Amino acid sequence: MKEHTYSYLKLSEFTLDIFRKIGCPEEDAKLAAQVLLSADLRGIDSHGIARLSGYVRLWEAKRINSRPAIKVVHETPSTAVVDGESGLGLVVAPRAMEIAIEKAKKVGTGWVSVKNSNHFGIAGYHAMMALENDMIGMAMTNASPLVAPTFSLERLLGTNPIAVAIPAGDQPPFVADMATTTAANGKLEILQRKGKEAPLGWIQNKEGMPSTNPHELKSGGALIPLGSDVEHGSHKGYCLGAVVDIFSAVLSGANYGPWVPPFVAFLSPPADPVGEGIGHFFGAMRIDGFRPADEFKQHMDKWITRFRASKPVEGQDRVLIPGDPERETNTIRLREGIPLNPKVVEDLTELASRFKLDF
Amino acid sequence: MKEHTYSYLKLSEFTLDIFRKIGCPEEDAKLAAQVLLSADLRGIDSHGIARLSGYVRLWEAKRINSRPAIKVVHETPSTAVVDGESGLGLVVAPRAMEIAIEKAKKVGTGWVSVKNSNHFGIAGYHAMMALENDMIGMAMTNASPLVAPTFSLERLLGTNPIAVAIPAGDQPPFVADMATTTAANGKLEILQRKGKEAPLGWIQNKEGMPSTNPHELKSGGALIPLGSDVEHGSHKGYCLGAVVDIFSAVLSGANYGPWVPPFVAFLSPPADPVGEGIGHFFGAMRIDGFRPADEFKQHMDKWITRFRASKPVEGQDRVLIPGDPERETNTIRLREGIPLNPKVVEDLTELASRFKLDF
Repeated sequence: MKEHTYSYLKLSEFTLDIFRKIGCPEEDAKLAAQVLLSADLRGIDSHGIARLSGYVRLWEAKRINSRPAIKVVHETPSTAVVDGESGLGLVVAPRAMEIAIEKAKKVGTGWVSVKNSNHFGIAGYHAMMALENDMIGMAMTNASPLVAPTFSLERLLGTNPIAVAIPAGDQPPFVADMATTTAANGKLEILQRKGKEAPLGWIQNKEGMPSTNPHELKSGGALIPLGSDVEHGSHKGYCLGAVVDIFSAVLSGANYGPWVPPFVAFLSPPADPVGEGIGHFFGAMRIDGFRPADEFKQHMDKWITRFRASKPVEGQDRVLIPGDPERETNTIRLREGIPLNPKVVEDLTELASRFKLDF
Repeated sequence: MKEHTYSYLKLSEFTLDIFRKIGCPEEDAKLAAQVLLSADLRGIDSHGIARLSGYVRLWEAKRINSRPAIKVVHETPSTAVVDGESGLGLVVAPRAMEIAIEKAKKVGTGWVSVKNSNHFGIAGYHAMMALENDMIGMAMTNASPLVAPTFSLERLLGTNPIAVAIPAGDQPPFVADMATTTAANGKLEILQRKGKEAPLGWIQNKEGMPSTNPHELKSGGALIPLGSDVEHGSHKGYCLGAVVDIFSAVLSGANYGPWVPPFVAFLSPPADPVGEGIGHFFGAMRIDGFRPADEFKQHMDKWITRFRASKPVEGQDRVLIPGDPERETNTIRLREGIPLNPKVVEDLTELASRFKLDF
């Protein structure tokens, strides 16, 4: 089946309507639509409108509260814990990041750990909120357990992404946004749809042996931490995923490790929770807490241009700066529209009819 | 040649004497010896006493100042930039980490970027300083360019390690300490000594092609970022190494990327520096800036025991917690001594005779 392309405006208005329909206040609905669609614009299709019906099902299962009273429950001048009150992560996360930014304005940095939240879209969106304030932004989240730590048969961690956004001067900002696994789950979904095999090093089967079957997770298999195997450093990917889990959930009082509730509404959360909802962690650091922002940006420009000027290996055009591919996709998709997989279109059409909307 | 074993006490006293001989004040010499030897105790042999003669040669080349007046040159309540005045990183780093800890006591967190420093030993030592204060500690540093970013023929990054130390209750602390490359340079040195080949995915040759020759770096080759190749996420390792470089050096005003001065004294630093010395970055977060420390530690214990209880894959005894292997080595080596490679012994014997000491 062929992919059709839809304008950002159309998808954005439809998403906004859906969030209104499930009872989000107007401002929250707008914010949630913007955060969700930023994934589609940046080419991270697995985290965008493809998940809209998933959020709706979680709301139907009463696992998402569309009118949360998001609040700070503990704080110091540079830290806070935020209770997301089971709100959409798409709303809770940017609100928590705003708190981190406000703290950074006052004391140089702000660090906010969040409990009782849900899936927050792409980490990069939240980290990038810092940029316009001349701050470095960081965002991470834990997620349903799909990943086996090094030497483990059991799935104990999520794909637990880390995003870091760093402002530059004349150059575009540096934006890293990465799952702490060899490959994100979204990449498996693409292979599943295309009927292709996965490279060795992405997945293990339920016996813990290497597998190339992208459906392996449905029969007890697991994703593998960044590094692929211990000889190539998978214990380092495991460390990174673990740090994200602890900062996001053990610091805040959310569920961690195998207790993180699943994103899909047809699976129940564990019966013995160790905390509330899922957890996130955000940071904002004011550049001029370290050196004058202009000076920093000049050096970031120099850093970026030097790396960009590096001689590429044969067969490659250029050395990329983190954020380059997503920024380029963003420009193209704003202009030319967002291609949607037929299954996603089917899903959205069904959503539309359920809520008596057009799609 | 056989490895001989030396007591921690003996190596420690010898190292202290050497640091005294190059003019370090007594307190600095003690601190430097403790930091350096912590690497040998924890089994990270490449970063311990094996480097002692390297530090001495840098001092002889007037690239290390044994009596630095380490100072804060810029700050906010939660941030600072420290000028290490070309001091031993082994001294500058723990002093900077102390500043981060003091800031965290006052406003919840402290973040210190350091310029004008030198190699700081193992990142884990500095991160672990936070533990006794019921804080999470973080430490990172940039290093001489040995690593080629994804698609790059040129070496633009160091092995740029990240360490994170997190306190627990009854369980030992969580301590991750990892180079952001597939393998640290120390692992290559071991293969070189043993005359063995490296696994594919650790190194590229000067044409950017995969290589198994552990001597490849001497002829224009490079280490590869964590992930090994782009299909397995080497762009993520590149992101991590880049973030360490920027936090450590672009924030502080140290040299970054290909401008980082080499550790070995026989190579001159670049003639067109973009900053001063090498850079580090430290962070300390008070646990009770987020939730009561007791509560956090109980959950860390639960996190650790759950991960430790995970069913291992066939052929493995257990799932490890970050820090387990190093802590176990530490216990054994304190009791049974530290094995030294014959080349290191030769090096130390030469140092001893130069400074009229016994070894």
